Amino acid sequence: MRQQSSEQLMKAIHAYIGALSYSREPQGLYDPIEYVLDMGGKRLRPVLMLLAYNLYREDVERVYPQAAAIETYHNFTLLHDDLMDNADMRRGVPTVHKKWDANTAILSGDAMLILSYRFLAQECSAEALPQVMEVFGQTALEICEGQQWDMEFERRDDVTVEEYIEMIRLKTSVLLAGALKMGAVLGGAPAEDAERLYRFGERMGLAFQLQDDYLDVYGDPATFGKKIGGDILCNKKTYMLITALQLAEPDDRKALEGWLAATDADPAEKIVAVTALYNKVGIAERCREKIAAYYAEGLQSLEEVGVEAALKQPLKDYVGQLMNRQL
Amino acid sequence: MRQQSSEQLMKAIHAYIGALSYSREPQGLYDPIEYVLDMGGKRLRPVLMLLAYNLYREDVERVYPQAAAIETYHNFTLLHDDLMDNADMRRGVPTVHKKWDANTAILSGDAMLILSYRFLAQECSAEALPQVMEVFGQTALEICEGQQWDMEFERRDDVTVEEYIEMIRLKTSVLLAGALKMGAVLGGAPAEDAERLYRFGERMGLAFQLQDDYLDVYGDPATFGKKIGGDILCNKKTYMLITALQLAEPDDRKALEGWLAATDADPAEKIVAVTALYNKVGIAERCREKIAAYYAEGLQSLEEVGVEAALKQPLKDYVGQLMNRQL
Repeated sequence: MRQQSSEQLMKAIHAYIGALSYSREPQGLYDPIEYVLDMGGKRLRPVLMLLAYNLYREDVERVYPQAAAIETYHNFTLLHDDLMDNADMRRGVPTVHKKWDANTAILSGDAMLILSYRFLAQECSAEALPQVMEVFGQTALEICEGQQWDMEFERRDDVTVEEYIEMIRLKTSVLLAGALKMGAVLGGAPAEDAERLYRFGERMGLAFQLQDDYLDVYGDPATFGKKIGGDILCNKKTYMLITALQLAEPDDRKALEGWLAATDADPAEKIVAVTALYNKVGIAERCREKIAAYYAEGLQSLEEVGVEAALKQPLKDYVGQLMNRQL
Repeated sequence: MRQQSSEQLMKAIHAYIGALSYSREPQGLYDPIEYVLDMGGKRLRPVLMLLAYNLYREDVERVYPQAAAIETYHNFTLLHDDLMDNADMRRGVPTVHKKWDANTAILSGDAMLILSYRFLAQECSAEALPQVMEVFGQTALEICEGQQWDMEFERRDDVTVEEYIEMIRLKTSVLLAGALKMGAVLGGAPAEDAERLYRFGERMGLAFQLQDDYLDVYGDPATFGKKIGGDILCNKKTYMLITALQLAEPDDRKALEGWLAATDADPAEKIVAVTALYNKVGIAERCREKIAAYYAEGLQSLEEVGVEAALKQPLKDYVGQLMNRQL
């Protein structure tokens, strides 16, 4: 089996997506779509799909449309999420509702979602299409559910660790998992393998997101893409905050709640103080352990996939790189 | 061939849609979807689909999921359009963004669009699915284009009759046309018949929308659902306004432009004055002729569909009723 590296696949799908043309009328609808897809990004989800497909078949170019479907869908969620979260910037450029307006973000987003389904069906084998549709639809709906929980958690004070993990599973993990499963289904994998690849992606997604939360507090400002402490400043109910509130001694818990309630705190001071409270209960270690556990569960599930171990190496290398790149 | 009347099909699909349960978590995502689908409506699009299917097959219940897909999609467009147009009421009840908020309208709408694709694929014959997906996707994208043109036209003063007709074709007609074509495809109709049914729906859609515009000026307040003169008050660039501006004598044109520019005009006075200017150039007759022409083109296309004339009677009766109900 001729296998391609994640690097090769990334370049190929990036070029494929870049060559898609949306220069049709009305431009007011299609220009924002081209703008969003041209922002770039790691093309993580299509690469995962292609790597999974490549475990079973060589002709990866056959499923570029389905890989483009996943990436288009992912970028649609970013577009609408940025509008709902009122975020001004994405990947260093203004978001669509800032560059254009809210109605443009709504309608161009809707069109992107429709386009993603068009790519999904494009040149798809009639045999695989029903199952691919099923996985895609289930995944897409779960991502909406994750976004809804995320918004509701902002207004709640009693979010549990289990609820937080379920929210990030829905909002982040299932799309990685679904991409891998769809790649497997398209490649003709046995059903059990498709499920194992799904679980592999789901566990890796949890590890990635927890690591992202961790780095938001403990990351190196030189390599972490965003500003350190952003989650602390907006009182985001991450695994770390929820766990710290649970484990802290009464006085420390009170201090932590004081920082959460303070509306006029100095940002730098708040970050330092909350981080110190995290340190007192050993949050960093706990979080790293949890990340490592999800990562190991993911690898275990990949281990069980019924193809030669050597064939799995590109997938293993790729997730390893993703974890390291973040650190 | 056992045929069902539009009345029977409407009741059946209404019951089917009413029995769909969305009581799953998070309720904040699914409650608004149930709310929108429970608002009712004529279920026009699913009925058209079922009538077209019933030209070729008896087992209409087999395509209820696809009929539900069209209705769910249609209600999704109403939900997002109401948000974009900032409309407060729909079918006598508050719109979703008024009853909940804008973010709810965005996210629950997205979930509805995803649900519509899930219905589309549900128990769909694997043979028909690719073409059904193609028609649905093309139609859905064109509806976004229509909405985009509609919003852009509000800011333009040079909209032509051709552009207006193309906008209402995209925004309104293609979904009726697509519903009929999908019904035909699912029923195993020959490709030419599916196209003829598409054109039938497209022309009828234009007739319905022009009639709606006409009744907004000349309708009977007792039977027309909305307030008379709404389009005049918001300067909507309908076929009637565009044509009146073209045909009016210089002085009348100036007077009409004056009413369009007046920001503090008395509403009742404006409606009376603009209607009088319409009457001077015979807009009512022109509009009625145009409606009749589209209606006749639609019937002609139905005529050409290659099934016994008697089988087409329920479809013919149904569009006739729809035209009369509006009058």
